[in-house]
Amino acid sequence: MSRASALDASGASELFQLLRDGAPRTRASLAQSTGLARSTVAARVDELMRLGLVTPVADAVSTGGRPPSQFALNPGARIVLAADFGASHATLAVTDLEGTVLAERSERRDIADGPEAVLGWMVSAAHELIDGLGRDRADLAAIGIGVPGPVEHSTGRPVNPPIMPGWDRFDVPGWVQQHLEVPVLVDNDVNIMALGERALAWPQVEHLIFVKVATGIGSGIISGGLLQRGAQGIAGDLGHVRVTRGSDVPCHCGNRGCLEALASGPAIARSLRERGIEARSGNDVVELVKRGDLDAIQAVRQAGRDLGEVLTASVSLINPSVIAIGGSMARAGEHLIAGVREVVYTRSMPLATEHLSIVQSAAAENAAVLGAAMLAIQHALSPEGIVALASR
Amino acid sequence: MSRASALDASGASELFQLLRDGAPRTRASLAQSTGLARSTVAARVDELMRLGLVTPVADAVSTGGRPPSQFALNPGARIVLAADFGASHATLAVTDLEGTVLAERSERRDIADGPEAVLGWMVSAAHELIDGLGRDRADLAAIGIGVPGPVEHSTGRPVNPPIMPGWDRFDVPGWVQQHLEVPVLVDNDVNIMALGERALAWPQVEHLIFVKVATGIGSGIISGGLLQRGAQGIAGDLGHVRVTRGSDVPCHCGNRGCLEALASGPAIARSLRERGIEARSGNDVVELVKRGDLDAIQAVRQAGRDLGEVLTASVSLINPSVIAIGGSMARAGEHLIAGVREVVYTRSMPLATEHLSIVQSAAAENAAVLGAAMLAIQHALSPEGIVALASR
Repeated sequence: MSRASALDASGASELFQLLRDGAPRTRASLAQSTGLARSTVAARVDELMRLGLVTPVADAVSTGGRPPSQFALNPGARIVLAADFGASHATLAVTDLEGTVLAERSERRDIADGPEAVLGWMVSAAHELIDGLGRDRADLAAIGIGVPGPVEHSTGRPVNPPIMPGWDRFDVPGWVQQHLEVPVLVDNDVNIMALGERALAWPQVEHLIFVKVATGIGSGIISGGLLQRGAQGIAGDLGHVRVTRGSDVPCHCGNRGCLEALASGPAIARSLRERGIEARSGNDVVELVKRGDLDAIQAVRQAGRDLGEVLTASVSLINPSVIAIGGSMARAGEHLIAGVREVVYTRSMPLATEHLSIVQSAAAENAAVLGAAMLAIQHALSPEGIVALASR
Repeated sequence: MSRASALDASGASELFQLLRDGAPRTRASLAQSTGLARSTVAARVDELMRLGLVTPVADAVSTGGRPPSQFALNPGARIVLAADFGASHATLAVTDLEGTVLAERSERRDIADGPEAVLGWMVSAAHELIDGLGRDRADLAAIGIGVPGPVEHSTGRPVNPPIMPGWDRFDVPGWVQQHLEVPVLVDNDVNIMALGERALAWPQVEHLIFVKVATGIGSGIISGGLLQRGAQGIAGDLGHVRVTRGSDVPCHCGNRGCLEALASGPAIARSLRERGIEARSGNDVVELVKRGDLDAIQAVRQAGRDLGEVLTASVSLINPSVIAIGGSMARAGEHLIAGVREVVYTRSMPLATEHLSIVQSAAAENAAVLGAAMLAIQHALSPEGIVALASR
């Protein structure tokens, strides 16, 4: 019998599911919460310790006599690779099993170079980072990758991604696994940003919407504690919902009046140029706001109201407790969020907003890479993942 | 050791989770899909048969020699009670563990009579139905109840329900369990309608929105195969999302331009009255449409477009494969749905509508009671539910 099937058959992998949250537990408390005999628990804990997945931790309080030994997930037992690919940047991190970053690399790099160039860079940079940490390559448990386009999550293939030439239907996991033989999870960048934001700032929250406002506008939806991807993996795609104000504004999608055509960075810059103010990009808008330019502040506030109109519908449909707003335009500070709040709190039903927080992203530019790590860790520590891990 | 903990410890309840879908399986196929030894599977199947939860089924195909015996869920092993309470009606059904209705009763009954009157009627009618079937009251496995207002699902308490005086925070499960000592699950009527519609017409669909258009407008959202209730249990509440056309129309919620103020049955009737056409209610509108009244048809079509505007946002956010439209106004037939389709297919991104079906509810007036049965059955057959069942 392999180590994997032994782990599974012994029930140790089931016990591990209790320990994976990182909180220390005694053998007695594990016996109590599982209903298993103390001796069974002891044998399973020993097995998880032999595999290095669980480690004894110092007891917080001595109880007088011999204190009961406590055990918890050993976050350093394995590492994961997290990759965040944007239109023109790439960030790579190696983290432990709690998402703590051990090594990181960030570069300007175009997703339009195609999958083999981008993923080839990822593989060689990953080897360098892992070697640099003095870790064994066999310690790598899984890889999480975020890309700026829709992804069929079950296969890890991008689907009709508008700004990723060469990536359509490309088998990302298959290609990567020729070089790094571990599970590879791929998702849309906004989805992993939602995971990252939740992990960092709202670990107890079950219903959260992360909105990215940058060159485009999109959102990642966590509902019932789970990322919601929808039938085609494009849930949360709120950039092309129509807003009242802009019924005549054309959008690059072919329709008119889309949120993205009014409230994205380029759209705000365009509206300022139409008023004779020099603003070539969303970043220029952010700079103007930081310098206190009143026109720019008003334009950002109005973009917030447009976004608020769409988020009001989201609040009614999804009933979240948190809306976190990130992406490069969130750097314009409270003005964007003030516009969102103004509309959402005016338009939504009282019960839906009574306990609703609308806030700036806490994870900010780290949301995506942290979320990619979470995607990899969730898989690695899952019942199937942990059995596979133990067999390697 | 009690029968319950024996069932749990033996692993039979785990095996049952494979069999609960009702599909027949052989001992060999069960051994294969669990990785358990044939002898272990045989012992666990025997245990489930002793409890009556699993039953041998006739083999479809003889394989020449002695055919392998097949087993499946025994749907008649237990019964559940399903209750659908509307503003002014009550429907009660006793079903088997597959949701097949064994006995039913429907009455005009006002929810405003308060919880003790309504639930008291339910308890005594349930006893009569169960006795009338010649079943033992101990066969009752669980009760599912739908009510016309928001519910905190974890506790089964209605929360600020606008048309349910006396029900706010009332402990529905606690009260019912004084008379029928089984698990009691309570949910909003539109949520259970989504469950019922899926069970009847779309059992394989993971992402479905059920929209009820009647006196009010609401929806139940199934995403990732699970009903999504949101942080306060009010997810899917799309009646008060603003639509473009009606910015000046006041709504009973205190805002203006809400979908419900434009596209509900009473709203369509009002718009017809303003044009001199006699229509006191949504039912009158449906009758006019059935008689071919062009004004009524046009008004219903426009209500469909308004609904479509809000559903376009829902399609972007949730990315469903099915939108089923029910409620009394759906009886106006294709005119309502044609308006919805017109707007959703014009406004949504192609990837989101490529495989999207927008259809009239197949479960129609049975959606709620069927969904209430599903709510009860899902709980009764869950890992915790089945252990509790076996102990009674």
